[in-house]
Amino acid sequence: MQNLTYLHDIPFGEAWKRLEEALQQVGKWGRLGIEEITLDEHAIDRILAEPVWAKISSPHYHASAMDGYAVRSSDTRGADPTNPIFLKVPTQTQYLDTGDVLPEWADAVIPIENVEPLDENGILTTQARSPNTIRIRSAFTPWSNIRSMGEDMIASQLVIPEGHRLRPVDLGAIAASGHSTVRVSLQPRVAILPSGSELIPIGQPAKPGEIIEFNSLVLAGQVNSWGGLATRFPITPDNSEIIRQQVELAAQDFDLVLLNAGSSAGSEDYSANIIEQLGDLLVHGVAIRPGHPVILGLIRKTRNKKTETSGHETICVPIIGVPGYPVSAALTGEIFVEPLLAKWLGRQPDNPITIKATLTRKISSPAGDDDYVRVAVGQVEDRILAAPLARGAGVITSLSRADGIVILPRGLQGLPAGSEVDVRLYCDPEEIRQTIFTIGSHDITLDILAQFLSRHNRRFSSANAGSLGGLLAIKRGEAHLAGSHLLDTDSGEYNLAYIRHYIPEIPVMLMSLVGRQQGLIVAKGNPKNIHGLEDLPRQEVVFVNRQRGAGTRVLLDYHLELIGVNRDNIQGYEREEYTHLAVAAAVAGGRADCGLGIAAAAYALDLDFLPLFAERYDLVIPAVFYDSELLAPLFKVLRDDEFRKVVSSLPGYDISIMGQVVAKLN
Amino acid sequence: MQNLTYLHDIPFGEAWKRLEEALQQVGKWGRLGIEEITLDEHAIDRILAEPVWAKISSPHYHASAMDGYAVRSSDTRGADPTNPIFLKVPTQTQYLDTGDVLPEWADAVIPIENVEPLDENGILTTQARSPNTIRIRSAFTPWSNIRSMGEDMIASQLVIPEGHRLRPVDLGAIAASGHSTVRVSLQPRVAILPSGSELIPIGQPAKPGEIIEFNSLVLAGQVNSWGGLATRFPITPDNSEIIRQQVELAAQDFDLVLLNAGSSAGSEDYSANIIEQLGDLLVHGVAIRPGHPVILGLIRKTRNKKTETSGHETICVPIIGVPGYPVSAALTGEIFVEPLLAKWLGRQPDNPITIKATLTRKISSPAGDDDYVRVAVGQVEDRILAAPLARGAGVITSLSRADGIVILPRGLQGLPAGSEVDVRLYCDPEEIRQTIFTIGSHDITLDILAQFLSRHNRRFSSANAGSLGGLLAIKRGEAHLAGSHLLDTDSGEYNLAYIRHYIPEIPVMLMSLVGRQQGLIVAKGNPKNIHGLEDLPRQEVVFVNRQRGAGTRVLLDYHLELIGVNRDNIQGYEREEYTHLAVAAAVAGGRADCGLGIAAAAYALDLDFLPLFAERYDLVIPAVFYDSELLAPLFKVLRDDEFRKVVSSLPGYDISIMGQVVAKLN
Repeated sequence: MQNLTYLHDIPFGEAWKRLEEALQQVGKWGRLGIEEITLDEHAIDRILAEPVWAKISSPHYHASAMDGYAVRSSDTRGADPTNPIFLKVPTQTQYLDTGDVLPEWADAVIPIENVEPLDENGILTTQARSPNTIRIRSAFTPWSNIRSMGEDMIASQLVIPEGHRLRPVDLGAIAASGHSTVRVSLQPRVAILPSGSELIPIGQPAKPGEIIEFNSLVLAGQVNSWGGLATRFPITPDNSEIIRQQVELAAQDFDLVLLNAGSSAGSEDYSANIIEQLGDLLVHGVAIRPGHPVILGLIRKTRNKKTETSGHETICVPIIGVPGYPVSAALTGEIFVEPLLAKWLGRQPDNPITIKATLTRKISSPAGDDDYVRVAVGQVEDRILAAPLARGAGVITSLSRADGIVILPRGLQGLPAGSEVDVRLYCDPEEIRQTIFTIGSHDITLDILAQFLSRHNRRFSSANAGSLGGLLAIKRGEAHLAGSHLLDTDSGEYNLAYIRHYIPEIPVMLMSLVGRQQGLIVAKGNPKNIHGLEDLPRQEVVFVNRQRGAGTRVLLDYHLELIGVNRDNIQGYEREEYTHLAVAAAVAGGRADCGLGIAAAAYALDLDFLPLFAERYDLVIPAVFYDSELLAPLFKVLRDDEFRKVVSSLPGYDISIMGQVVAKLN
Repeated sequence: MQNLTYLHDIPFGEAWKRLEEALQQVGKWGRLGIEEITLDEHAIDRILAEPVWAKISSPHYHASAMDGYAVRSSDTRGADPTNPIFLKVPTQTQYLDTGDVLPEWADAVIPIENVEPLDENGILTTQARSPNTIRIRSAFTPWSNIRSMGEDMIASQLVIPEGHRLRPVDLGAIAASGHSTVRVSLQPRVAILPSGSELIPIGQPAKPGEIIEFNSLVLAGQVNSWGGLATRFPITPDNSEIIRQQVELAAQDFDLVLLNAGSSAGSEDYSANIIEQLGDLLVHGVAIRPGHPVILGLIRKTRNKKTETSGHETICVPIIGVPGYPVSAALTGEIFVEPLLAKWLGRQPDNPITIKATLTRKISSPAGDDDYVRVAVGQVEDRILAAPLARGAGVITSLSRADGIVILPRGLQGLPAGSEVDVRLYCDPEEIRQTIFTIGSHDITLDILAQFLSRHNRRFSSANAGSLGGLLAIKRGEAHLAGSHLLDTDSGEYNLAYIRHYIPEIPVMLMSLVGRQQGLIVAKGNPKNIHGLEDLPRQEVVFVNRQRGAGTRVLLDYHLELIGVNRDNIQGYEREEYTHLAVAAAVAGGRADCGLGIAAAAYALDLDFLPLFAERYDLVIPAVFYDSELLAPLFKVLRDDEFRKVVSSLPGYDISIMGQVVAKLN
């Protein structure tokens, strides 16, 4: 790699300013254009390019507000229950449906239910709309039951200011004000070019080394939901010439080009070089994480004029080099593309709802960057908590599971647990109150529980911190419940001793979730011929362990001691994973030959399983939440036959104890 | 009107229960169906009908997380700056791009920037990717810089639970988990049938008695934004037979029929009768306001089976009779259609953000109904205020301007000013902080100001309460500013004396907005030959006045006294309107021959104007807001040349004093 292009990351504000100045110079810092469209359903979500002023008043005439009789109010003066007044049809009064035009001579309407219709003989008639005479028994003031002209709006008045995103009721107001079209901002056309020789399209089976290309889909979805019109180009291999051709092609017909590089630094170099060839490289690297290899540029292209018979024009099209890692790509969309589209559409940029929350874990940050930390958010009693999710730029689930983002500005090297932070929410604040926040041991049943709870308007957010981590989270008031399977090696009982020892001050209920089998997860066919914990110290066997505090780790250490195996002799004892599935994945990926875990994890990844021990997996629930509305659906699901059926169909699971209260403690 | 159909309003909960039971009986209380669609941009906003479980892990192999060199970590042990270690290419180490597959023998990656590439002579080379040997000066632990298989997700894990509305990042997570399609809920097809002989389509000029039909547009926009597929039928006249045919037609191909009646009680009777003829009338009238004439029913229709060669089937399609008034129609959508679509889509119903606010005015409510009160919401210092908007079911702007809804449940006959209420927000809570809340005298300049402020991310919410009403709102801390033009008849000065008298305790700045002309607004051509206030007592002249406390009313009374005219001799003196435009509309509509107001209002409605007096219109701004970020854009707009140009082009306006500080008081 000759002359490695070092990225010179500049602060976000500076990068944005360079883009703004470049676009201002070429007259592209503002609305791209205006189009007049018919006032129909397709106008929803479009941005008004000009204010709407009322062309007509609404109502545009004096209208009866009721079904009833038009009268001169002066003719009704003096009427009361004992002194009725009689009015002759049609000279003194006249029937009107709601919405009918008020006759010029009238100034009030008497609702039909306040009228006694009489026939020519003065007898009550059922012909309520065409009597000979009406009898009334109360007086009416002028303008009673009339919608006077302009009651809703008056011609020339402002109906909706420019820059407004049209909602269904707005279309109603615009129609009522006499318009049949609206002038809205042109939708910016955005070309999305995925590049990278390692990429394969969605739907094609992925071989090792191949990466499913979905960044273009995420970016296209973002662009469309922000009011742009996205077009996804086919995948381009890492070939400078082909990428350059595609970029030039895109610059012809689009307002913005998003060039999504492969994830390697080499791939980003292609992008930067191509942009330099085709125009101006404005920014190469922005001090944000994830996302720092962002590139900003301006393509300048001379082409024949479309409108005149001869001559050339130079078109200038901004281009954003989007980093290849999926979290970086999606955040580049939020940070750069959304505000640029807002500018072009003439609307305000998205302004997410921001709430204060308490960090559950410490965050370490690079000092030089704005650090975008994805968090899960939950409310436990009165405290709103933000739990940092996986930090890797490749972990797309850290975005799909995120309830919000915490931004640690440059200069801050991190924050300790317990810090108050501002969370820019991705979800509705109401959803946070519907979230059951779980920290503790992981079991596959929890995923199924999450799925069933979603039908009851509950989100189930579970963080894996091991059984002991769960008890400590309960102690700190940071979870509604914890999953735990901690074996007390003295009593052979599960969880009770640990609860008494670690959280003696917190009244809790211990409820069984499932019985399950623990055993060794080994590769298909058990090639290393492993049959029990006795085999672990063998020279050719590599083990993968769970983290300290995990119930499975306690179980392992207990049985190793029972059979007198020294843990120092086990290769891989120090390699820790945080879930059963991660242990199984380590075996499936060949990183280890075996690990202790549950059967379901082994079968999920098509591995073999050697059952060794039966154990109980419980839920620890603080007393304060027993009767909460939040947890009520959880107890309902535990009694749900369909849920029990799904869990019992998992290999190695026993649901006979599900939902049983083991004890109430403290 | 033989046997007027009396509405028997039942509570909302009861009405909803009847619909639920009827749909349960016919097996339509749940997801209507599932379709499998391609994972592309069109999947955005669709509702997952089934949970997504990961088919593959992500990454699905051990991948290099950096551009760098794969090594055995054990080979790097002991390396430090003074004791470098040399590794041979390709036997001991091998170059990898980010995302490349980790060779089986390797367990760590050294980033390229930590490597010194050497040629065959041991000299540093620029061929960083294909050297002979590399030199490293630090040790690496196992699994450094590797994205291990399943780091993001592990096959079989829950990716997204059912019922979730798909966002762009979700599509990325689903693609990464190995899916190329998603199973989503079928979109309910909704037919919208507007009926009413008074209705004309949008775009056709409206004659008196004709009403522009836009309810179907609002309902269609709502249905589409809630995940349904709306089809608007053409307008049907009030003809029972034709409406019945249309309903039968719609029931063939749609999942839900919305029959939007005309606004008269007669029109609703058609709907009820037709539903009784075609199936079951479940509910006729619900105790909600606006919207109480809602009708719920079930159409039962026998038709030939589509799937078999012979036989019949009965299809059951719910129908909602939607009231004709636009606010009633839109609220019927929110209250009945949205939750029904949610049920059919298998998602949770919309749950708007709810905030606490203080009522600025008292509300009177019918005791028997849930009362849906539209409110404008603003924050003045620490108080969030809810100002009730027009109550009429015909006032569509009360919805398009609403920031939220306050629901007064049945049994409550209203609430006094100052009550704390729950507001279900239509807008973003962040927008409320960007709202300049204005109460006081109305001037057309304020509409133009609103339009210009929208460009600066400020919403300008102005309530007309007259000049004095504005000062009192400032006193109660319910406005950021007030427009005022109160003439002190003793001094001839504007506003100063009133501020000193009514709000002596509040430090305020008095800033001029405009000078403007007041005069008599008369019909085109001045048919009654009116030339001044002296003409007002004439027998054939009907006047329209402004409300008590309005600056224009003070001006009128002052000049009437000056010229010795007795107000008791003026016909219409007691008829009060709240804005200049409303006065002009009264003249334009023939309800009055003249009224005192500003020139712009007269010209806006193509009326004649007789200028009489010049006056100053000021803004009263409490000291506490002088330097607020909220009002900064207001002062900017007052200096904006474009704004000044637009205002000065209005007839009778003088901008020479715009933005001048008259005084700082108190």
